[in-house]
Amino acid sequence: MRDLRLGLYIITHEDAGIGYGHLDVARAALDGGADALQLRGKEICGRDLHRLALRIREMADEGGGGCLFFVNDRVDIAVAAGADGLHLGQEDMPAVSARSLAGEDMIVGMSATTVKEAERAREDGADYLGVGPVFATPTKPDAVAPIGIEGLRSIREAVDLPIVAIGGVDEKNARQVFAAGADGIAVISAVTAAKDMREAVRRLRSVVDACLPGR
Amino acid sequence: MRDLRLGLYIITHEDAGIGYGHLDVARAALDGGADALQLRGKEICGRDLHRLALRIREMADEGGGGCLFFVNDRVDIAVAAGADGLHLGQEDMPAVSARSLAGEDMIVGMSATTVKEAERAREDGADYLGVGPVFATPTKPDAVAPIGIEGLRSIREAVDLPIVAIGGVDEKNARQVFAAGADGIAVISAVTAAKDMREAVRRLRSVVDACLPGR
Repeated sequence: MRDLRLGLYIITHEDAGIGYGHLDVARAALDGGADALQLRGKEICGRDLHRLALRIREMADEGGGGCLFFVNDRVDIAVAAGADGLHLGQEDMPAVSARSLAGEDMIVGMSATTVKEAERAREDGADYLGVGPVFATPTKPDAVAPIGIEGLRSIREAVDLPIVAIGGVDEKNARQVFAAGADGIAVISAVTAAKDMREAVRRLRSVVDACLPGR
Repeated sequence: MRDLRLGLYIITHEDAGIGYGHLDVARAALDGGADALQLRGKEICGRDLHRLALRIREMADEGGGGCLFFVNDRVDIAVAAGADGLHLGQEDMPAVSARSLAGEDMIVGMSATTVKEAERAREDGADYLGVGPVFATPTKPDAVAPIGIEGLRSIREAVDLPIVAIGGVDEKNARQVFAAGADGIAVISAVTAAKDMREAVRRLRSVVDACLPGR
């Protein structure tokens, strides 16, 4: 199993109405000291996604490479941009096919909501799991019902892969999530809803460091 | 330049309301004698698109391999399914990046509406052009204004790549399109709007054969 640092994992988002975009979230994540950053733009055309991915790769490299860069869903964009990793949801291309395209060096994460999905992801060669939604979240109002801390714990007991908890995780409930065995927290709203996104990342960084003193 | 047979190029579509799907169009294309078949499912999740692409690859192989199989937009799905080719729109990943992922054997087509786009596609290494919309089409009501036979002819004069004309092309206007120098016609509605899709492909096949007697 790889030794991955995924304690604070920020996922990009855009909201043209409010006026922030994927690059703003990426900048905040890098400046605020995130361990991982995922470009997730299901609504974006391939051309723009490719451009964003190349730009974020540059930004991450300029930041010293301490933050792992993941691309959601699109194996082709991940490879073309030289991403460190790829994140696959249950509706994305199967992990085995993705791995054969992306190569052994690519970190492959998979979303899992149930123990069955988590075990399947492990069999399919996932390097880590995105587990959730743990709590309800405004970013995905149509997501499946939250699995709660109990659901997270049951997946933690079933598989030994690194687990990044996702779905409504914030400064306040992060301790609970780590106490249930998560290795990291993945956040969108906890950053994008903040007035100062960089400051929000820094505060989350402190919480994660307090919860994972050995890392 | 590759010697490509693209005279009759069918693009898949689905309409759950009417009750046909991508595989129905693919089956009709193969049975009716199309030269090329493109899976285009912008609305489909990666998992389903991957599954459909693998199935169409099998169907095309069972049909003897005389029909080239293309995947729209997704380089990763095209490679994973062993497609013969990849079709890129102006909003998709740049052709140069796609080619470096897909390899030299992959046939790469690009959409072009203007002479400038066509020339750029040629520079970027496209193997053929999808040129249009030539006429108005019900499949893409929000598409750009039709370029007409004149627009097609101006692109024909500007670049020497194989040209597949798209957009409202049907049995009745196909002759005009070939007379303007197209090497093939790409159709969606002319097949999917027919009561018998296989029969519609066969009739188009006859028209194409009459227009391209040397092929």
